[in-house]
Amino acid sequence: MAAPAQNLRINGDRLWDSLMEMAKIGPGVAGGNNRQTLTDEDAEGRALFQKWCEDAGCTMGLDQMGNMFARREGTDPEALPVYVGSHLDTQPTGGKYDGVLGVLGGLEVIRTLNDLGIKTRHPIVATNWTNEEGTRYAPAMLSSGVFAGVHAQDWAYDREDAEGKKFGDELQRIGWRGDEEVGARKMHAFFELHIEQGPILEAEGKDIGVVTHGQGLSWTQVTVTGKDAHTGSTPMPMRKNAGLAMARILEKVDEIAWSNAPHAVGAAGHIDVYPNSRNVIPGKVVFTVDFRSPDLDVITDMENRLRVAAEDIVDKMGLQIEFEKVGGFDPVKFDDGCVAAVRDAAERLGFSHTDIISGAGHDACWINRVAPTAMVMCPCVDGLSHNEAEDISKEWAAAGADVLFHAVVETAEIVE
Amino acid sequence: MAAPAQNLRINGDRLWDSLMEMAKIGPGVAGGNNRQTLTDEDAEGRALFQKWCEDAGCTMGLDQMGNMFARREGTDPEALPVYVGSHLDTQPTGGKYDGVLGVLGGLEVIRTLNDLGIKTRHPIVATNWTNEEGTRYAPAMLSSGVFAGVHAQDWAYDREDAEGKKFGDELQRIGWRGDEEVGARKMHAFFELHIEQGPILEAEGKDIGVVTHGQGLSWTQVTVTGKDAHTGSTPMPMRKNAGLAMARILEKVDEIAWSNAPHAVGAAGHIDVYPNSRNVIPGKVVFTVDFRSPDLDVITDMENRLRVAAEDIVDKMGLQIEFEKVGGFDPVKFDDGCVAAVRDAAERLGFSHTDIISGAGHDACWINRVAPTAMVMCPCVDGLSHNEAEDISKEWAAAGADVLFHAVVETAEIVE
Repeated sequence: MAAPAQNLRINGDRLWDSLMEMAKIGPGVAGGNNRQTLTDEDAEGRALFQKWCEDAGCTMGLDQMGNMFARREGTDPEALPVYVGSHLDTQPTGGKYDGVLGVLGGLEVIRTLNDLGIKTRHPIVATNWTNEEGTRYAPAMLSSGVFAGVHAQDWAYDREDAEGKKFGDELQRIGWRGDEEVGARKMHAFFELHIEQGPILEAEGKDIGVVTHGQGLSWTQVTVTGKDAHTGSTPMPMRKNAGLAMARILEKVDEIAWSNAPHAVGAAGHIDVYPNSRNVIPGKVVFTVDFRSPDLDVITDMENRLRVAAEDIVDKMGLQIEFEKVGGFDPVKFDDGCVAAVRDAAERLGFSHTDIISGAGHDACWINRVAPTAMVMCPCVDGLSHNEAEDISKEWAAAGADVLFHAVVETAEIVE
Repeated sequence: MAAPAQNLRINGDRLWDSLMEMAKIGPGVAGGNNRQTLTDEDAEGRALFQKWCEDAGCTMGLDQMGNMFARREGTDPEALPVYVGSHLDTQPTGGKYDGVLGVLGGLEVIRTLNDLGIKTRHPIVATNWTNEEGTRYAPAMLSSGVFAGVHAQDWAYDREDAEGKKFGDELQRIGWRGDEEVGARKMHAFFELHIEQGPILEAEGKDIGVVTHGQGLSWTQVTVTGKDAHTGSTPMPMRKNAGLAMARILEKVDEIAWSNAPHAVGAAGHIDVYPNSRNVIPGKVVFTVDFRSPDLDVITDMENRLRVAAEDIVDKMGLQIEFEKVGGFDPVKFDDGCVAAVRDAAERLGFSHTDIISGAGHDACWINRVAPTAMVMCPCVDGLSHNEAEDISKEWAAAGADVLFHAVVETAEIVE
């Protein structure tokens, strides 16, 4: 494959201006965005993206999940397209870059090719996946999941938001339900540029993260049952303190994660204590243990060690415990060739870079099941995301898009 | 003082019937009661108590906090009365016995004296203290607190419920604000019969608890601040997990309480985790540590050890911590003479008994500041209270009231 010359760069100012323009749609209350999936604001954002794509000479495809595909033709009618994109929907208190950078980065690849009059053998398709965030309609990455065959389309249509409105009905209502069969498209490769949503790149002073794996995830909801009792009139030996059992289990969760350093992590973000009164010993605690690792065997081992350790803790205290697996997905290993294309691009362009494991889920994690896939990450300030204060610099965005451009265009093959 | 003869007993059936009759006012949803202070149901319960007292030949006094004083005259015009009582108000999901047993037990003392034609040198006054529970108007034991000079009356009147209604206005509205100056009455002694609200008597198979002390209490609200971060994309060494710090502090709370066995206790019943989301490492946790002991030095020492240990834990983790003392009262040592009267009565009547420390607060804890005071406790099933399922047997109630009768009447001195 012919790699682009080192001096080929995207237009960082134009990319930034587009990011700022898109951010005007569905503004948040604190400088970020509230452009949740299948809202009127989502429709408005989609229309702007479509206009920009058509202005760039693309033709827009739309499938039955509302996934958008803006195609720039290649020279070889037989060659499968290289796809590049992410998502335009945001969290209710989301930032301006999570997802949007990857979609507009894909558009910028096409705009730059147009600027330079470069032809590629493979078509290039800038993509917007519907409902990556999963806040309004769980689960996250819903439509890339249907595309990759992970979820059934009917099941996806039946998902309900907090007001009982169904996904399928809302997709129809906003006018972005297409006719195209979901997942029928075949891809030569898929690339996704995304902000890191973690602190590693900034802390290490790296311009680019070359994403080699996606963390696998296991959510175990733990319910410890003791006995509500008065904090004053219950002697220590007669207590069945579910809160204390939880404390001991949380210490074990930390120990188990550290024993699988450096890539495994573990914590409990969700903790509900009942009845949660200052003068009542907790009779019940419900909490969710989040374990992640790029290695499925490690995840399974951590789950098992948690159960054994927690049962031992509650047995000694005379309490009861129940475990429920409430979420999970397997680790992702991205395509060696696509990952190498990203790493080579960063190297060629002179950006500092490091291999990185994505801790969050992304559309690329599902698409990796049906096409050779890789991701490019750029830093974000303080690792902050899913927050209106989410921030990146124009230079970080441009560096990420430059690497995306080179990886995509090398894979799509420049026609000399 | 002349002690009543061993064969003098209260009428256990009548006491039980009165308990059941009072429980019809302000019924709960699960077999208990919702007769919160200064509601229409409270007024109805007061009216029934007044009618019963007047039927027993008493005259009713009413002070400016709504405290009720039903007086049976003594033979000596100079002798101060012996007071006996508790409270008629309940928790929103309260039981039929917490407080009510002590008020109707006081009435049963008077009824039994009437049955037997016994005269006492000291008058006997059956008492209902307003707003012991503190659920609608914090703090608990509000009106006995004003009586004992712990709280100012104006401050008490300004307490607001969740709807913003003031205590003073609601007391006026239900028609139970009296003219009598609060705390002007002088007492020869005060006795309170109460269910244990703990598991000790039932577990030890004792009929009677002779309450020697009230636990002192210290509530320290602890706020640990770390940093919200994604559970997937934040490496273990970069986490500022406030939930894990809380877990470590809770283990210390337990250790500190056990090190002051057997009387000290410690736990956290209130725990709030922020933002409490499965995929966000807790950036903040707020929880309240409840320490109790009958020894003020032990309480102070436990508070200090908590602060030192917790600061050490968060320092090592790079987090911040704040402490706020949000509640407390000093331990109570009841009057030796009154306590002996209770113990002697239990012994004389042939009931099994044990000295016990009250873990909960009671009106007697405040009245002890202004009069010689003691408490009698009877068991309750499973130590359960502040719950509609709160339960005692007719025999337990009768035994408690028998001991109350003997202690009160011995103190009031039978006139032969």
